[in-house]
Amino acid sequence: MVSDNSCGDLLPACNGEGVTITFLEQVLDILLEYILKTFDRSTKVIDFHYPDELLEGFNWMLDEQPNTLEDLLVTCRTTLKYAVKTGHPRYFNQLSTGLDMVGLAADWLTSTANTNMFTYEIAPVFVLLEYITLKKMREMIGWPGGCGDGIFSPGGAISNMYALLIARYKLFPEVKEKGMAAIPKLIAFTSEHSHFSIKKAAAALGIGTDGVVLIKCDVRGKIIPADLERRILEAKQKGFVPFFVNATAGTTVYGAFDPLVAIADICNKYKVWMHVDAAWGGGLLMSRKHRWKLNGAERGNSVTWNPHKMMGVPLQCSALLVREEGLLQNCNQMNACYLFQPDKQYDLSYDTGDKALQCGRHVDIFKLWLMWRAKGTMGFEAQIDKCLDLSDYLYNKIRNREGFEMVLDGKPQHTNVCFWYLPHSIRHLPDNEERRSLLLKVAPQIKTRMMSFGTTMVSYQPQGDKVNFFRMVISNPAATQEDIDFLIEEIERLGQDL
Amino acid sequence: MVSDNSCGDLLPACNGEGVTITFLEQVLDILLEYILKTFDRSTKVIDFHYPDELLEGFNWMLDEQPNTLEDLLVTCRTTLKYAVKTGHPRYFNQLSTGLDMVGLAADWLTSTANTNMFTYEIAPVFVLLEYITLKKMREMIGWPGGCGDGIFSPGGAISNMYALLIARYKLFPEVKEKGMAAIPKLIAFTSEHSHFSIKKAAAALGIGTDGVVLIKCDVRGKIIPADLERRILEAKQKGFVPFFVNATAGTTVYGAFDPLVAIADICNKYKVWMHVDAAWGGGLLMSRKHRWKLNGAERGNSVTWNPHKMMGVPLQCSALLVREEGLLQNCNQMNACYLFQPDKQYDLSYDTGDKALQCGRHVDIFKLWLMWRAKGTMGFEAQIDKCLDLSDYLYNKIRNREGFEMVLDGKPQHTNVCFWYLPHSIRHLPDNEERRSLLLKVAPQIKTRMMSFGTTMVSYQPQGDKVNFFRMVISNPAATQEDIDFLIEEIERLGQDL
Repeated sequence: MVSDNSCGDLLPACNGEGVTITFLEQVLDILLEYILKTFDRSTKVIDFHYPDELLEGFNWMLDEQPNTLEDLLVTCRTTLKYAVKTGHPRYFNQLSTGLDMVGLAADWLTSTANTNMFTYEIAPVFVLLEYITLKKMREMIGWPGGCGDGIFSPGGAISNMYALLIARYKLFPEVKEKGMAAIPKLIAFTSEHSHFSIKKAAAALGIGTDGVVLIKCDVRGKIIPADLERRILEAKQKGFVPFFVNATAGTTVYGAFDPLVAIADICNKYKVWMHVDAAWGGGLLMSRKHRWKLNGAERGNSVTWNPHKMMGVPLQCSALLVREEGLLQNCNQMNACYLFQPDKQYDLSYDTGDKALQCGRHVDIFKLWLMWRAKGTMGFEAQIDKCLDLSDYLYNKIRNREGFEMVLDGKPQHTNVCFWYLPHSIRHLPDNEERRSLLLKVAPQIKTRMMSFGTTMVSYQPQGDKVNFFRMVISNPAATQEDIDFLIEEIERLGQDL
Repeated sequence: MVSDNSCGDLLPACNGEGVTITFLEQVLDILLEYILKTFDRSTKVIDFHYPDELLEGFNWMLDEQPNTLEDLLVTCRTTLKYAVKTGHPRYFNQLSTGLDMVGLAADWLTSTANTNMFTYEIAPVFVLLEYITLKKMREMIGWPGGCGDGIFSPGGAISNMYALLIARYKLFPEVKEKGMAAIPKLIAFTSEHSHFSIKKAAAALGIGTDGVVLIKCDVRGKIIPADLERRILEAKQKGFVPFFVNATAGTTVYGAFDPLVAIADICNKYKVWMHVDAAWGGGLLMSRKHRWKLNGAERGNSVTWNPHKMMGVPLQCSALLVREEGLLQNCNQMNACYLFQPDKQYDLSYDTGDKALQCGRHVDIFKLWLMWRAKGTMGFEAQIDKCLDLSDYLYNKIRNREGFEMVLDGKPQHTNVCFWYLPHSIRHLPDNEERRSLLLKVAPQIKTRMMSFGTTMVSYQPQGDKVNFFRMVISNPAATQEDIDFLIEEIERLGQDL
């Protein structure tokens, strides 16, 4: 028991070993209980409460006075009670789902090691593992010998920002000193279905969202290459400089794979940097059955790949891979001599910190590396193939089911399955404005009920002229056909009277 | 024992509970052993090996085939064996040191909850705790009622980048759409002793490093306000727009506090955004004895404050606090409707994700919040006061000690104590070029030996015309006077024959 103790009794307190061990073991017990519940289908995915209820129901305040260790343990339990069980087999709400036990263990170790990635000096093993893993990822992309460069960054949006940053630097290195005012107007191209981080990065980098041209997609959400070429020519005719094409391998909503080979041909023709945003689709590179969907990615100049999505690595774990070595360093380095002393005793090429936009950089590598050791490439492959099989199962089950309507024709390419549920009241209405105005309320209403019951979670959104629909994604290895069946029936149960 | 098991036997495998519990308990044992060693002064801070030795001494490769759980446990032990014990009482190498047991427990819980900060929907408690903590931090800065805005970001460099970003947006909101080409040339001001992240951010944001004017410092490393005003006027005369002044509260090398009140007066006079980079010094706001050093911070428009530095929160934990509410949101939002559905059932002001440059954002709040609960504000105060007392102790001990020479006159304002160690061979040489060329090699040589012995770690660097000197910093609550004594004697032992 640690009931009478306070944090002042923990290490580094004198004779703090016993209390420390007891406290951390009690924390482990709480975490183990949560883990077991996470995988137990009889527990809720979420015990939902409105913000005011949570704020008023508990004392979360920060005070002058300390609290006991016992109070902290109670707080930990409360925090987890109202957390969303993102590893629950019926949690389908985001692209990142699941709770990998090896990844989790690795993350605990990472927290315990509590260091930064800037130099080999303070993170020798992690720096080496990052080097090894980035090389392996580049091999999987198809770059000969795994040559090139890369960095782990705090999420796909920042990885995409890096890509824009180095593409700009490659063309106009003077931008680093002189800024955007000294160079011509740049235009980036990305599909209307692509992730908002391209525009967000363009705004931040001083390019401006007007410098991002959205390319038309076909009905499946894939870039139409002819439109890309047309818009590149249009930009050139205006005297602008097309400098960056973002091709998405696995769009957020439809899970579409842009035609990478056709895009690579166009980028090659017009000498434009080709970036492949495979944040979501990159995991498919691990699968012999599905990796053809990324054919052409090897022709990209840079690739974003988030192992925290399809590969189930704990958050966060995102990599930017770059074909040309040295660009990241040249683009970002500032040579701060209090971090990157040139007169150290070891090979300074391992001090990778100056490649980063960040100064301190969190250790995101160990969880990916240890999971890879645990599963082998074949284990990741099996896990990913299983998720894609499940999405096929879902697709086949609902595509002709009464009350369900698919947003897209044809088999899904990724695990995204997009559909409307039609309550009886609107099922037989003609497809007109009135029906759409009713239909757009259905998914939010079902979602609200779903959250209240806490039985499952799935996301919805509109897309273009298509009103709110459900977007199922499966990245959780814990999910089974039974969970897919449950989801379908739960949507019917919650929505039938609407 | 889990010796015959593989990761396929862990949850979510059928009947995986037993193996999972055993595996995670064994991981905990490894971590506990590391923690006990961390605080044991008879263990090394680092068991240093050169990159090639580590690469060749072990099999770190990623293969097709899986490995057993037993192999993973061995690997975890190896990884920790060669890790730097950043919590060791004699680790003084970086601004972030120490290993707080409550912070660590909270980080383990965070990993287990494995969620993202973008919406209340998937991180209800963490979103609320971020709200509460940011408000509390703004109160500590001195903004009435804790009003304002803020965000936790992946490190101080990114927090500083946010500050530049919103300062630019505040003055020229059209930059978001139209980019830097559409607005006048902007100039940011920061001291020659300030953190390199200001220049790094300026390069990234398309302002260019030429748009960053370095202001002169006095001998203690503090901005000279008259030089700031002069350079602002100079920029205006050239037709440029001064838009951002970075004042540092706790510089990286000297630990200097810029004169915030004088800077605030100048910023007010010329209507320039005042940012306070208190990444390192912010912790002193918790101390009634030392917070006067940040007087004037409350007049800043934004403040960077890294609890992972002086407050000992596990990496990473950095906040940007902003006086004006709504700017972060307006500057960065892209309204992606698949994340920020406008038709949700709860108060959407809790969906803070669109304030961020990131899409997914790691949960960095729980460790800070739980530590604050554990210690209370008074606990942080005691911890910080103790570190500052220790730096006084060090200063007093070496300032007149034979063989030591202080880089600065006068008592340190933060825990930074900068000094040269002079081996006998150069102790009595005249202060000329020859002596300097010998002296600059001393710190690197001592550091190399220090790493080989692994007994302690402290950083060195040059600064301006001052050749390599040691920069001691104390942020580790585990350190005592005995450790300071050890450091001094160890430098003497390692350096005397040079």
